[in-house]
Amino acid sequence: MNILATRWVELPDGVREVAPGLPAGFRAAGVACGLKADGGLDVGLLVSDAATTTSAARFTRSGVLAAPVVLCQEGSDLNALRAVVANSGNANAATGPRGLDDAALTQAAAAEAAGVNQRAVAVASTGVIGVSLNMDALVPGVAAAGAALAPDGDADFSDAIRTTDAFPKRATLEIELSGGTVRLSGQAKGAGMISPNHATMLCFVQTDAALSAETAELLLGVTVKRSFDRITVDGQLSTNDTVILMASGDSGVGVEPETEDELRFGLALDALMRALALAVVRDGEGARRIGRVIVRGGHEGNVEAVARAIGNSPLVKTALHGGDPNWGRVAQAIGAALPGTGPLPFDIAIEGIRVCSAGAALPFDAGALAEAVAGDSVEYEVELPGAGVEVEQFFSDLSHEYVTINAEYTT
Amino acid sequence: MNILATRWVELPDGVREVAPGLPAGFRAAGVACGLKADGGLDVGLLVSDAATTTSAARFTRSGVLAAPVVLCQEGSDLNALRAVVANSGNANAATGPRGLDDAALTQAAAAEAAGVNQRAVAVASTGVIGVSLNMDALVPGVAAAGAALAPDGDADFSDAIRTTDAFPKRATLEIELSGGTVRLSGQAKGAGMISPNHATMLCFVQTDAALSAETAELLLGVTVKRSFDRITVDGQLSTNDTVILMASGDSGVGVEPETEDELRFGLALDALMRALALAVVRDGEGARRIGRVIVRGGHEGNVEAVARAIGNSPLVKTALHGGDPNWGRVAQAIGAALPGTGPLPFDIAIEGIRVCSAGAALPFDAGALAEAVAGDSVEYEVELPGAGVEVEQFFSDLSHEYVTINAEYTT
Repeated sequence: MNILATRWVELPDGVREVAPGLPAGFRAAGVACGLKADGGLDVGLLVSDAATTTSAARFTRSGVLAAPVVLCQEGSDLNALRAVVANSGNANAATGPRGLDDAALTQAAAAEAAGVNQRAVAVASTGVIGVSLNMDALVPGVAAAGAALAPDGDADFSDAIRTTDAFPKRATLEIELSGGTVRLSGQAKGAGMISPNHATMLCFVQTDAALSAETAELLLGVTVKRSFDRITVDGQLSTNDTVILMASGDSGVGVEPETEDELRFGLALDALMRALALAVVRDGEGARRIGRVIVRGGHEGNVEAVARAIGNSPLVKTALHGGDPNWGRVAQAIGAALPGTGPLPFDIAIEGIRVCSAGAALPFDAGALAEAVAGDSVEYEVELPGAGVEVEQFFSDLSHEYVTINAEYTT
Repeated sequence: MNILATRWVELPDGVREVAPGLPAGFRAAGVACGLKADGGLDVGLLVSDAATTTSAARFTRSGVLAAPVVLCQEGSDLNALRAVVANSGNANAATGPRGLDDAALTQAAAAEAAGVNQRAVAVASTGVIGVSLNMDALVPGVAAAGAALAPDGDADFSDAIRTTDAFPKRATLEIELSGGTVRLSGQAKGAGMISPNHATMLCFVQTDAALSAETAELLLGVTVKRSFDRITVDGQLSTNDTVILMASGDSGVGVEPETEDELRFGLALDALMRALALAVVRDGEGARRIGRVIVRGGHEGNVEAVARAIGNSPLVKTALHGGDPNWGRVAQAIGAALPGTGPLPFDIAIEGIRVCSAGAALPFDAGALAEAVAGDSVEYEVELPGAGVEVEQFFSDLSHEYVTINAEYTT
């Protein structure tokens, strides 16, 4: 699956997609150590060989933080990461002091395997909540990953972070900058926002451009807000969400602040992150269709609340699944998001067809609308009072398969 | 179905359930006028014959208010209602100025049919959003309901407000007060919180006790908070939710403020409202199991947010459906409700079995827990830091049938 083939992401000028592969200076590996019952790859290691590597990171805002998230925030130099060790099959969340010890032990094992300082290693985990890691399996697994590190190891690394993901999510871009060409690659995993025994969201992005730590921090902060902060599968927030950008500088091409190069690199990073985030929605548990809602208005809090309410509404999501042009459910979500403000004038359009104006139904071509919502993706637009604020929210539908995945297994 | 037969509602001393029926002074009717395609009863009328009837009302807090809700709030004397006219099959929501005119016309028709002043009539609607009412059917329907009014008409009235409800929700209590015995009856409808072409929540309660309007207001306000404000099926908020309490005084028995009588009457009203609300959850679209979560802690906002997050989590709801003791999903919902507070110490127990303490997994008897979650209802308890605040949330599960009901029809 080409994750960049979506109506909602465009590559900027001077940026092209190439065959997936790591930028210069990076090596990766993925091995099986036994955390997954089915014997699949479950430990990934990603290393930048340049001592001057810069980085930036973002984590879940959940009040229940997995041990590896706590470790990264307290025990890693997040602006100078050289390595990432990630396991699937176990989230190491709600595991108490033992979980923190296990995360630190994993970090130490990865530091040794990668030949870097322990604080230069980030740790990420995904899988079941509330069960301690099997360190007898994981520590040798990390060593084996270290031995398997290779410049073309990103495919195995991508596989090792998958859980219920139906397809791998990785891509590589080449970006023409004033000083030459740089590469930008990314690997993500996620299918439910969070689901014990299933997916949580992880994303790792690498470039051989030379970025200051401040530039990496700035660009990652902006692009996370426009990508992984704008998607929902089931409205649930992981204990483990982690996004890490690493820049090796091995291309010898720098990205200086407030330049055309920074703008182009930022747009390319934005496109990659949005494509990876959209791939998570497309691969949402049980998803058949995906939607985007754009909400406009004059009050930022209201616009944001309405966008999230629509994207998380089980009634909107089941209608999307059924190809049902039921805009009354969108109206319901708008009202629910803005309690006490009624009667509220609002407009709704679906795939460009206006169905509601100033809070009241409009006559519309029902056949054309039914056809418009029968495709793979559906776009909704909502206008609230005022102007100047616009947000978008991407979401998957709610299907029988979602219920099956989440109800019909036992822990 | 006996709606009072639930582990989570107890009748207070001096209160007993009797065969459903209206208190003295009330008449009701339900007729079919053609709003429902299947020819079912779709117009209900409820009248109190006493000129001194007092009342109180509560409405949805949605920002998108259906026309009948706006009419009630602006065009009815909510502390002196003598009649309620309710239709199913059409919510008269998102219908603009025409919708407001239609609601007023319905109110006028009901006033004539009931022989009361127009401002003494409340109007309620439930059904599809965004379609204008067929007034050529409804106005004669209201007149026919007026002709059919009878003291034993509450069964037809209950039927006329049903949409996807699988069973009627009504009950009658007798309450021993110091001045004699009074009756309290109620009728509710609801299966999804809101769902075009399906259910929205309505509840009507009648008594022949003599209550001042202030007492009616006070008691309804308190009991709504403990009943219909504490349930969720799909986390969606109706444009039409309406709860109305009417007191005819026909028993000649008064309920004076700050007396034992007021306490007992209030407890009986509380039990009735909670039982009706729980019946809505039990009849939630596609529901197989229902849950209650009790959250305790020291911060009211946090306790409330966690209770709602758990009750609305599709992961918790699918686990409830599947009889899966997956407490990691409860932990996830806690963290999602309290962003930025982690690491957070919290305890979780399911049916009295402690599974998590201070944020970390406890050893527990997996067989006993699996058995405990296999019943018709499951109780969860969550302890957050601090003390002094306790809230509960009732919720239904998320099933294949919910998806079928909401995805596999077309409007």
